[in-house]
Amino acid sequence: MRTDVNTLGEFGLIEHLTRAFPLNNPSSVKGVGDDAAVIDNGPFCTVVSTDMLVEGIHFDLAYMPLKHLGYKAVVVNLSDIYAMNAFPRQITVSIAISNRFSVEALDELYAGIRAACEAYGVDLVGGDTTSAPKGMVISITAIGQCEKELLTYRNGARVGDLICITGDLGAAYLGLQLLEREKQIWQENPGIQPDLEDQKYAIGRQLKPEARREMIETFRKVGLKPTSMIDISDGLASEIFHICKQSRVGALVEESGIPMHPEAELLALKFKLDPATCALNGGEDYELLFTIDPADVEKVKYLPEIYIAGEILDAKDGIKLNTKGGNLHDLKAQGWVHF
Amino acid sequence: MRTDVNTLGEFGLIEHLTRAFPLNNPSSVKGVGDDAAVIDNGPFCTVVSTDMLVEGIHFDLAYMPLKHLGYKAVVVNLSDIYAMNAFPRQITVSIAISNRFSVEALDELYAGIRAACEAYGVDLVGGDTTSAPKGMVISITAIGQCEKELLTYRNGARVGDLICITGDLGAAYLGLQLLEREKQIWQENPGIQPDLEDQKYAIGRQLKPEARREMIETFRKVGLKPTSMIDISDGLASEIFHICKQSRVGALVEESGIPMHPEAELLALKFKLDPATCALNGGEDYELLFTIDPADVEKVKYLPEIYIAGEILDAKDGIKLNTKGGNLHDLKAQGWVHF
Repeated sequence: MRTDVNTLGEFGLIEHLTRAFPLNNPSSVKGVGDDAAVIDNGPFCTVVSTDMLVEGIHFDLAYMPLKHLGYKAVVVNLSDIYAMNAFPRQITVSIAISNRFSVEALDELYAGIRAACEAYGVDLVGGDTTSAPKGMVISITAIGQCEKELLTYRNGARVGDLICITGDLGAAYLGLQLLEREKQIWQENPGIQPDLEDQKYAIGRQLKPEARREMIETFRKVGLKPTSMIDISDGLASEIFHICKQSRVGALVEESGIPMHPEAELLALKFKLDPATCALNGGEDYELLFTIDPADVEKVKYLPEIYIAGEILDAKDGIKLNTKGGNLHDLKAQGWVHF
Repeated sequence: MRTDVNTLGEFGLIEHLTRAFPLNNPSSVKGVGDDAAVIDNGPFCTVVSTDMLVEGIHFDLAYMPLKHLGYKAVVVNLSDIYAMNAFPRQITVSIAISNRFSVEALDELYAGIRAACEAYGVDLVGGDTTSAPKGMVISITAIGQCEKELLTYRNGARVGDLICITGDLGAAYLGLQLLEREKQIWQENPGIQPDLEDQKYAIGRQLKPEARREMIETFRKVGLKPTSMIDISDGLASEIFHICKQSRVGALVEESGIPMHPEAELLALKFKLDPATCALNGGEDYELLFTIDPADVEKVKYLPEIYIAGEILDAKDGIKLNTKGGNLHDLKAQGWVHF
């Protein structure tokens, strides 16, 4: 079935898309349906992050199901809120779409958005829905809360701090390479079904990433406040550069300390790529990179999925990578270049 | 001069575009440059509104200078915050642009954004900058503050309340008609310079609208709390329908009570349009429509630029327009249909 969005009209469409979203957070005073949403903050700081995803740049609907896209679009924003050591409470979702998208297609997208809202306990409180001459653009703003004294910025790393990572890196990037390859094969031979069965992990990391909510909850439980934190969206190297630049420090990263999933390592070799390069520059894993005071090492030592991958140095020592072979290189931040 | 955005890179571009934006509000704890912005709310409610503007749908760069576009994009969002009886404090700005836009073009856009930030006392605290295969999309989220007991929703109008409007309507729509006509003439005869000199008011209302900040300040001063409020972005008729639907009431609108600027009335006649229809369905004037308890009439009676244009009725009486000729019609909400 294909219902043209024109049959609903703008307000009808907004109502249709958002009526299944309940407000669950006590701080969500007013959601969709007025000029603005209202959030009661009490004694907390409000934390706001926004991301724009553009079809053809950030996602390819040839292999990204709309439901996954909706889920991922929310998760990447929540990841930014967690990276402040804060908890997301509300989101607004704006979309611009061409008339090639039916109401059913938007329902799929919003089903994914709803699944993410439910999984992370956030409320959809507003947004905008408009037409576009071409393609799809999704802009999400996430709003979170944090006690002021627990907020963790990128600029707090100090010399001697330990560099920690919350999980394995590189798989999301390799999942994308795999999807791109299968898309090309499929375009050349539409009869051939893509074979992705044995790479479920990497594909999952690309199509359905998760944000590190439970890690922030754990920090609260063990009484840990990182000295600095950032989420790994553009690749570990790029994020280390952000931390070092804003904290005015250098860093030593141990290649042997960078966690990788065995499937990602194998996949890298299949693609004739250096696994460490994938982990350093791959991006989209949405793990957290953070630094801790060495006095806090006992708090993270026995926690699952926290890896110590290096140390903060003085700014004049630069940003270095100690390879598995024992060579010391200058780290390069490739990241993603969209322009 | 035309600097390709590629020469700056994504982070360089963000820095370039946002470094001239100071944080002036005490509540703006952290602005651009981390995973998220941080807002200290104290005892206030946070109010959030978001709007997406798409080239070819919401704006036409053939006659909309980029600086004006930046200004207007901010103002339309602030207008939503004022319509909650709240004061905007922060905005985030996300843009997706094709490579046809140079750094200088973006500087123009951001100069307009900055001018609006300065005029309304709001801080730019975040955003996203990305490429698009085509055109330009701007998504702005505005964040405001309000004492909880002063928040004014769309659903508070009661039978007997007076319907008020803060200024004249229809001019922005007629300004758009004029610009569209001149664009067509220019496209057919590129030698002819557009002649807009004697329609400065309507053009200004379209290209550089303002939000009704001083009206909300006046409400505070005279101790007035409207029972309901909405900003007039889609046209008076459409907004009255929103108020009536959410408040479960009807309304009687007096055509003679709808304020119009003399230039707009003349322009309507030139275009062979009914002036009242332009005022009712034109939109983009960003005036406020609000209802007040009749006991509060003394508070607004002598205020400049507040017009009483009707009365709230019981829902069963419907939504009526009493024309200048003395006929009673059902009001129709045309609004804007983008899809």
